[in-house]
Amino acid sequence: MKTFTQEAWTSIDSTIYKNILELDFVKELMQGSLNKETFEFYIKQDKLYLQEFGRILTILSSKLQDIGESSKFLVYAKDIMDVERELHEEFLDLFKADKNLEASPSCLLYTGYLHTIVNTSSLNVVLASILPCFWIYQEVGAYILKHQNKENNVYQSWIDTYGSSEYEAVVHDVIAICNKHAKSASKDEKTQMLKAFYKASQMEWLFWDSAYKKEKWPI
Amino acid sequence: MKTFTQEAWTSIDSTIYKNILELDFVKELMQGSLNKETFEFYIKQDKLYLQEFGRILTILSSKLQDIGESSKFLVYAKDIMDVERELHEEFLDLFKADKNLEASPSCLLYTGYLHTIVNTSSLNVVLASILPCFWIYQEVGAYILKHQNKENNVYQSWIDTYGSSEYEAVVHDVIAICNKHAKSASKDEKTQMLKAFYKASQMEWLFWDSAYKKEKWPI
Amino acid sequence: MKTFTQEAWTSIDSTIYKNILELDFVKELMQGSLNKETFEFYIKQDKLYLQEFGRILTILSSKLQDIGESSKFLVYAKDIMDVERELHEEFLDLFKADKNLEASPSCLLYTGYLHTIVNTSSLNVVLASILPCFWIYQEVGAYILKHQNKENNVYQSWIDTYGSSEYEAVVHDVIAICNKHAKSASKDEKTQMLKAFYKASQMEWLFWDSAYKKEKWPI
Amino acid sequence: MKTFTQEAWTSIDSTIYKNILELDFVKELMQGSLNKETFEFYIKQDKLYLQEFGRILTILSSKLQDIGESSKFLVYAKDIMDVERELHEEFLDLFKADKNLEASPSCLLYTGYLHTIVNTSSLNVVLASILPCFWIYQEVGAYILKHQNKENNVYQSWIDTYGSSEYEAVVHDVIAICNKHAKSASKDEKTQMLKAFYKASQMEWLFWDSAYKKEKWPI
Repeated sequence: MKTFTQEAWTSIDSTIYKNILELDFVKELMQGSLNKETFEFYIKQDKLYLQEFGRILTILSSKLQDIGESSKFLVYAKDIMDVERELHEEFLDLFKADKNLEASPSCLLYTGYLHTIVNTSSLNVVLASILPCFWIYQEVGAYILKHQNKENNVYQSWIDTYGSSEYEAVVHDVIAICNKHAKSASKDEKTQMLKAFYKASQMEWLFWDSAYKKEKWPI
Repeated sequence: MKTFTQEAWTSIDSTIYKNILELDFVKELMQGSLNKETFEFYIKQDKLYLQEFGRILTILSSKLQDIGESSKFLVYAKDIMDVERELHEEFLDLFKADKNLEASPSCLLYTGYLHTIVNTSSLNVVLASILPCFWIYQEVGAYILKHQNKENNVYQSWIDTYGSSEYEAVVHDVIAICNKHAKSASKDEKTQMLKAFYKASQMEWLFWDSAYKKEKWPI
Repeated sequence: MKTFTQEAWTSIDSTIYKNILELDFVKELMQGSLNKETFEFYIKQDKLYLQEFGRILTILSSKLQDIGESSKFLVYAKDIMDVERELHEEFLDLFKADKNLEASPSCLLYTGYLHTIVNTSSLNVVLASILPCFWIYQEVGAYILKHQNKENNVYQSWIDTYGSSEYEAVVHDVIAICNKHAKSASKDEKTQMLKAFYKASQMEWLFWDSAYKKEKWPI
Repeated sequence: MKTFTQEAWTSIDSTIYKNILELDFVKELMQGSLNKETFEFYIKQDKLYLQEFGRILTILSSKLQDIGESSKFLVYAKDIMDVERELHEEFLDLFKADKNLEASPSCLLYTGYLHTIVNTSSLNVVLASILPCFWIYQEVGAYILKHQNKENNVYQSWIDTYGSSEYEAVVHDVIAICNKHAKSASKDEKTQMLKAFYKASQMEWLFWDSAYKKEKWPI
């Protein structure tokens, strides 16, 4: 019998996930040919995203009854804040110009969706909603690492972060926690979990696509 | 000296608010010429929006220390759920086809933004963020009522709801509560309040504009 | 097969509930012989309790996904705020002396326990934790109404409120909602629900007992 | 001009704090003469308290807008979970008998009060409410370290933890963050902060006193 996460991944594998791998953003990142202004736009939005994702994991940590699991998510939240700071330092000159970054519509849509789930859904659904961010990044990171142009790729440090075995171990842990909880989900709850996983995966696609387009507010 | 809400409205009056009045959606609603499929799209999204906005007001009610204010927001939340149900009955045949409505990106962006504010900001900022929904609807309602084509406008019940003096009284109450709280806001908090008011106003524009475009998920 | 609420009541019927009926506070209220200062202490603490219980129901309302259920709890929260105000007016002279009421340890223990459950447990457990306040009051009210001294009982309005058929109907509704949700509870969740029901029932006993003792802070 | 924390400490120094130093629990811990069953009762309740206090700090972390501050409270929460585990291991044989610890009324009163503040008060008030646990422990720890019987005190590892300079540095940090935030508090908010600090300090006294009495549930 399929685990929850196997079923969830199957629902996006040949659609959203395949579409992500085919995004110009991902292809050009892999080749090292991605425009620097585009990457700058992306990394700034990612900084804003990670700040909020760190908060989401912190709230999640406070809701987990198992102290071991709660403690793990505290560490993930802390690591994400550190990654955010390190990415910031790594690409420091990108941020010289403006301190007051403004989240793009797609960035705000994604983090707002996660806050909505936190406020209106059960713990199981929250776990399903935060999984695509961990998992898709790890899969995309591994895919890029395998297929990339390794000669002087200016984005190597980004690729190495998400393609690393350390990061893979974290993602396996999050998947395992999610499956453990999913076992006690009611039928209705499982439907909601699959929906949240799918919706968050859509937003992963949107995030990269919006970065490539340097998405602006229409008003 | 300007009240908070005077300052907040000034920040959108000649920009976002003016742009809302000039939206095709608003103009055609006023003339009664708005395409029925467009209105159907709008009213379905509005239903989803109001469900979530009712929740936001409920959470806000639970955070207000003054029992009188808390009680008022309970009533607003209840009224919104009733409006949602009545709109539903009024335009019942519109919903015949599909029970499982899916929020559009702009609808989810707006409600997700409000949930984000609830989870990450002070009560004052929450109050500022929920104000545009009340206030802009009331101003637009009054504007339409004044300038509308009154001959057989199929959207008359919608116009009458938001153009009514009862609704105006509610909005004045919400404005007064917001100003009362704003008096004790620190400088930094007031900046955040103005930003939240402006951002939620942007989303009012987006909501109507996205309805006119029958906005779809790009993936 | 027993419903959740049947099983929950069985766990307290011959222990906590029986002990509540035997409390001096309840016996003397029934006879109308309860010391007025004791009732004053009680009604002040009850006012503070109901304010907080109203908040708890409001937070619960915001977490219920079914709009009909959410709307019901909004009305209960509103009704409780109204009861609180009416009790206040009914026994108005009792409150003349001090505006700044301070919650007793047992009052704070009970409302703090409910806030803890809201922050750390699933919706099902929250539902189980708020049930004893509704249900035990209704049972005690009906018991008192049946066995009371009806001649000039100064506490008649209190007795009539909780012994009324209107109140009984509300409690039946809350019980039905709780049972409906309990059906999808996992085994572990059901254990937590029973524990929360039992713990909140203990606090019902503590609340009345502490009123009879006019409980003070030891420091 | 006095800082908030100077004013707050002054409000408890000659009353609650003095009374804590004079508690039999503290005196006998200092002498090493404290009954082992009493310490066992205390350490079990402390374990339950710290689990919940860790959650409170985690929720607080999620509400702090400054990433640096948010990150610090994540680390405090993590450290508390680790302290809880280490205390557990240090006094492991104490826990052999029963896995299912039940919080005493005073333990639940304290953690429930903090959850109540989190749900109903502003960030400033939350900061004031969590301060006594940090600060009083540090002061009591330093006091005991100075005045203790150092010959074979079986509670030395406990004393060393709270009397350490590392712990002092943490407490100074928390005090500084609290004062920084208090600067922008309104007059009404400051009153609430002082009340929360005082109330949480009362609960520190209650916690130690209840441990000495091996407090039981009266029903």
